[in-house]
Amino acid sequence: MYLPASAPDPHPLDPLHVGEVKVASTAILQHLGVTTKDVRFKVIDLYEPSKDETLKYIHHGAPAPDRRCRAYFHRLKSPILTIAIVNITKGVVENSYDAPDSQGPVDWVEYDLVHKACLSHPKVLEEVAKLKLPAGSRIENDPWSFGTDDHNERRRLFQCYMYLALSDDPQANHYSIPLPFAPIFDGHTLELIDLQRLPTGATDEIDEETQPWDPTSAVEYSADLLGPDSFRKDLKPLQVLQPQGPSFTIQGRHIQWQKWSFQLGWNMREGPVLHDIRYDGRSLFYRVSMSEMTVPYGDPRSPYHRKQAFDLGDSGFGLTSNSLSLGCDCLGHIAYFNGIRVTSSGDPVIMPNVVCMHEVDDGIGWKHTNFRNGQSSVVRDRQLVVQCTATVANYEYILAFVLDQAANLHVDVRATGIVSTMPIKKGVHVPWGTTVAPGVLAVNHQHLFCLRVNPSLDGRSNTVVYDDCIPVENEPQLDPFGCAFKVKQTQIQKPGGYDLDLTQNRTFKILNESKINCIANKPVGYKLHPVPSQMLMMGPSTFNLKRGIFTTKPIWVTKYRDHELWASGEFTNQSREDTGLAKWAARDENVKNDDVVLWHSFGVTHVTRTEDFPVMPTEKMMVSLKPVNFFDINPSNDVPRSNQNENKSTLHQNDSSCCSTRPSRI
Amino acid sequence: MYLPASAPDPHPLDPLHVGEVKVASTAILQHLGVTTKDVRFKVIDLYEPSKDETLKYIHHGAPAPDRRCRAYFHRLKSPILTIAIVNITKGVVENSYDAPDSQGPVDWVEYDLVHKACLSHPKVLEEVAKLKLPAGSRIENDPWSFGTDDHNERRRLFQCYMYLALSDDPQANHYSIPLPFAPIFDGHTLELIDLQRLPTGATDEIDEETQPWDPTSAVEYSADLLGPDSFRKDLKPLQVLQPQGPSFTIQGRHIQWQKWSFQLGWNMREGPVLHDIRYDGRSLFYRVSMSEMTVPYGDPRSPYHRKQAFDLGDSGFGLTSNSLSLGCDCLGHIAYFNGIRVTSSGDPVIMPNVVCMHEVDDGIGWKHTNFRNGQSSVVRDRQLVVQCTATVANYEYILAFVLDQAANLHVDVRATGIVSTMPIKKGVHVPWGTTVAPGVLAVNHQHLFCLRVNPSLDGRSNTVVYDDCIPVENEPQLDPFGCAFKVKQTQIQKPGGYDLDLTQNRTFKILNESKINCIANKPVGYKLHPVPSQMLMMGPSTFNLKRGIFTTKPIWVTKYRDHELWASGEFTNQSREDTGLAKWAARDENVKNDDVVLWHSFGVTHVTRTEDFPVMPTEKMMVSLKPVNFFDINPSNDVPRSNQNENKSTLHQNDSSCCSTRPSRI
Repeated sequence: MYLPASAPDPHPLDPLHVGEVKVASTAILQHLGVTTKDVRFKVIDLYEPSKDETLKYIHHGAPAPDRRCRAYFHRLKSPILTIAIVNITKGVVENSYDAPDSQGPVDWVEYDLVHKACLSHPKVLEEVAKLKLPAGSRIENDPWSFGTDDHNERRRLFQCYMYLALSDDPQANHYSIPLPFAPIFDGHTLELIDLQRLPTGATDEIDEETQPWDPTSAVEYSADLLGPDSFRKDLKPLQVLQPQGPSFTIQGRHIQWQKWSFQLGWNMREGPVLHDIRYDGRSLFYRVSMSEMTVPYGDPRSPYHRKQAFDLGDSGFGLTSNSLSLGCDCLGHIAYFNGIRVTSSGDPVIMPNVVCMHEVDDGIGWKHTNFRNGQSSVVRDRQLVVQCTATVANYEYILAFVLDQAANLHVDVRATGIVSTMPIKKGVHVPWGTTVAPGVLAVNHQHLFCLRVNPSLDGRSNTVVYDDCIPVENEPQLDPFGCAFKVKQTQIQKPGGYDLDLTQNRTFKILNESKINCIANKPVGYKLHPVPSQMLMMGPSTFNLKRGIFTTKPIWVTKYRDHELWASGEFTNQSREDTGLAKWAARDENVKNDDVVLWHSFGVTHVTRTEDFPVMPTEKMMVSLKPVNFFDINPSNDVPRSNQNENKSTLHQNDSSCCSTRPSRI
Repeated sequence: MYLPASAPDPHPLDPLHVGEVKVASTAILQHLGVTTKDVRFKVIDLYEPSKDETLKYIHHGAPAPDRRCRAYFHRLKSPILTIAIVNITKGVVENSYDAPDSQGPVDWVEYDLVHKACLSHPKVLEEVAKLKLPAGSRIENDPWSFGTDDHNERRRLFQCYMYLALSDDPQANHYSIPLPFAPIFDGHTLELIDLQRLPTGATDEIDEETQPWDPTSAVEYSADLLGPDSFRKDLKPLQVLQPQGPSFTIQGRHIQWQKWSFQLGWNMREGPVLHDIRYDGRSLFYRVSMSEMTVPYGDPRSPYHRKQAFDLGDSGFGLTSNSLSLGCDCLGHIAYFNGIRVTSSGDPVIMPNVVCMHEVDDGIGWKHTNFRNGQSSVVRDRQLVVQCTATVANYEYILAFVLDQAANLHVDVRATGIVSTMPIKKGVHVPWGTTVAPGVLAVNHQHLFCLRVNPSLDGRSNTVVYDDCIPVENEPQLDPFGCAFKVKQTQIQKPGGYDLDLTQNRTFKILNESKINCIANKPVGYKLHPVPSQMLMMGPSTFNLKRGIFTTKPIWVTKYRDHELWASGEFTNQSREDTGLAKWAARDENVKNDDVVLWHSFGVTHVTRTEDFPVMPTEKMMVSLKPVNFFDINPSNDVPRSNQNENKSTLHQNDSSCCSTRPSRI
């Protein structure tokens, strides 16, 4: 799979390919003067070239900048994370430094080591024995990033939440039987630090002694465990055909579809990333990505107070991406893209099919009927979906970038998977969540995402503004009947966090002030359709907030600088403070008519329901970026009108035989 | 098409059928002792039986209540609207009364009469002559409901907005050339009341004299006018196949699909209505419908200050529904339902295919992967869509009720069509809207909808509550790290309007307090996922607000009473006050543990863009009703897992031939 010499050069923003990973790990080992036995690699990922260099390459035919990667690794004898920037083109380490105060993200090897250490530790087994479990049952654990409740903690810790599975079915739902203790292990030494017992009553108090397991049956989702008689029988197949193939073309990672083009990036942390997004040749966005996501839990009882995952920074949507399978994760004509990760010894591993791309029909895109003669024009809303699904232990996220023919870019986020479950005594209910099965508490929590948008609307100098719709009041001369309203525009001139205001229909827009739409006499722009959400409930004194400032405001604006990609900073695992937006948004610098970044924080406060168990139906959120006076007319005015010759729909014959001459009883 | 004697009896909530319309109009003529020449019928529509009677029929096998209709008509010699309630079963008028103070909705005959009167009136033609139009051009007009700016106006008035079409193409876009005058006609006498000239500058001022037309080309959407070279060439067909047929069954108007069942109602005013909605045999909602929609415009210049359509009350989503066509308005396996209307002489007219029903795939419904072994379960999100599209002059609404397998009921509203256009001098821009083409102003406006939900969650006695998520603050004993939050529930005990509060994640829920989910120890319920929206900007002294109180609060709760269906009251055309929620929500009566109605007002403030012209891409809004501790587990846990055997997706082969051994450049 090594890139043959005859292949075209990679685009500067292409993910690493297999050969490059090996070049990088080899360079690092040479640089350190060690062998693979001395080092555990965690991450080797593209280190994106500077925007200056990349734009020269894209727009002016300058030579491609050198390919570089960023590597995270440990020397085996030390818990300290090392970061190296490697020039892959030259095969040399350009920079290397330790981060003794930070914890890197989790890697699969480490996760596996902790998982096994927990399951085999004598003290854990001793505790398990007290449960007096029936034969055939099986203990499981999910090592969780420890979180933060102490400014001085520097060990790399994992809290292993423990569960019971009642069968060996590969999809037996152990989350249905949470056990009342959660050992803490040191991820570096694999030592047991504490065998923390969990509260199972209404208060913080712990039972004096671990009690024998109170037998209960698991709530299963495994089709094999449920058995064929458990399924509804009346779901008929629905298939999507594209007899002439798809409307997209793929050259390397360059995608073209319906006047759109972009480079499909991918990395361990963010999963799919869209670069250099254009419509009809005009530049729209330099980079659009999911930047971070944090899940604080609302239960004050230890250790739950510490539960706050940063699912991008602590592990990564790329690292945890599923290998997607045909006919399951997408429907229709599907293109797949692989990802790549590094083994602990520095070898590349291809992650097959971590991104899928396909077209969907989303109903009517636009329609008008001339009522005088009944003549109609209908355009369907064809969309291109670029999707990944990430499994972060119990939970799943589905992230999709969705393009449509009206030049809208949507970010479709779905939360699914299994809610994090904690043990609770039968019959006890606490205010911190919902009992979703006997003995199973699903604690209320928030999911707060941060989307990062680096616009380049017709050029690099853009401005973020917001428009408020405000009634004209007390101006009887101008507005005698009191019906008038105006749009008041406010320019954002300094970096910072900004509020939505639904009462004023506040709309954040990105404008290119030097490019005027001559018809509207307004600057060309794109507007953000946000997901208005409750922000973080935890206050300014909490670690929850200090670790992720992005959760406190829905809108952030910063001035662009290379490599400022991750809202809460580079290292979120056991972080004590935010080294991302907290720093960048506090800089006193110009963001008007400049290279700016717009960040949107949004999410759900998830008050759990019985319906969320065993696997929760997707909770959908959609952020959109829509043109506003960017084009002169509806960009989808040129889409061929919908017609039966191509759509080949079928007409349903009414089932009511007695009514065959009387359609639908009329 | 008359109902044969052998056909099963209609369900009490079925729309009228053809025979019934004729029975009703005949009974009215007999009652009045007149012939069809003396009367103009406007509406004959089902008058729904009382809920008491209907529930006895549905649940206790009581005989079907008599079929009744409500008719609106004029005696030709009088402008006064008469309302009659006709017992169709008995063929007699049970009640008949005049509404001298109200205007009924528009009907097609009246619309046509006004339209023609305007186009042929000598004074209008005289004004047109001043435009010195080129040969081959054609004048058009849209008669608009007059609106209200005077408490004493009792004439039935129409303001005819005038346009120019440059070709005889049936889809020539006359909205692209608005003309600077708007005659006002009396809809009863067809007399010209005023030939109002329109402001075309920055202020209210009118040109001294109508100027010759300043030639401009129209922005067209007609495929014939655009010509084949105007269309993108790279859109490939996408087809939806259901080789084993659909998953629904239809008996008369009774629909069953994936554990759901409902009666599909339909009427002239609301279009499709869902009655007696159940899931897995359990009662959920007695009636769900779009109740009203109003569009106030934000331009204070006369006559625009009066523009405020009530598109359900003034005309009706049923009356203006398009006849849908296969392969255009839906894609896949489509069932159609007809509607029915009455001619001015009392004869029934079938409106073919005004509602379509089909299944769609909306991506992943839920997914979980056991990361230990990569084993995945995926359920796709199959949905049933019941849809209509309504053309209200220039504008289109798409209303769809969408059911899914997780027992969610969604109401999907899309706004499309052509924005209302007004003339503006070239080069002039006003703060009230956007110039969307040279000489064409699209004024900013709001679309405010009101959805009506009469729940019956496991019975008729339900309670509306709202839950706020509130941090636990300043309780260091309980919450030492400040991470805890609680759900605070407030019961709604009195009718009225209520606010959303995103800062507290306020969630409105309908509960059956007498039915406890034993697992969660909480009452069974459904929650509303609203569309948080800016409410009406016009203040309490304006007619805009007085005519539709529902626009001022997102949530309303009233006690159920028969026939209280329409948020702004029965007659909205030229209404001066709200006779709906304004009255019902002001009653001092119990709504706790009672038969309650939940109303949700939502919409968009539409600041127009060049991209909205000539036909605007759909603006989508989605309201959802989702179970909350109503079921014991995820209702879609029994959906067969997604699999390629049934889905038959196809794998895309990478286009980059040079990279054929290197998938996606990795």
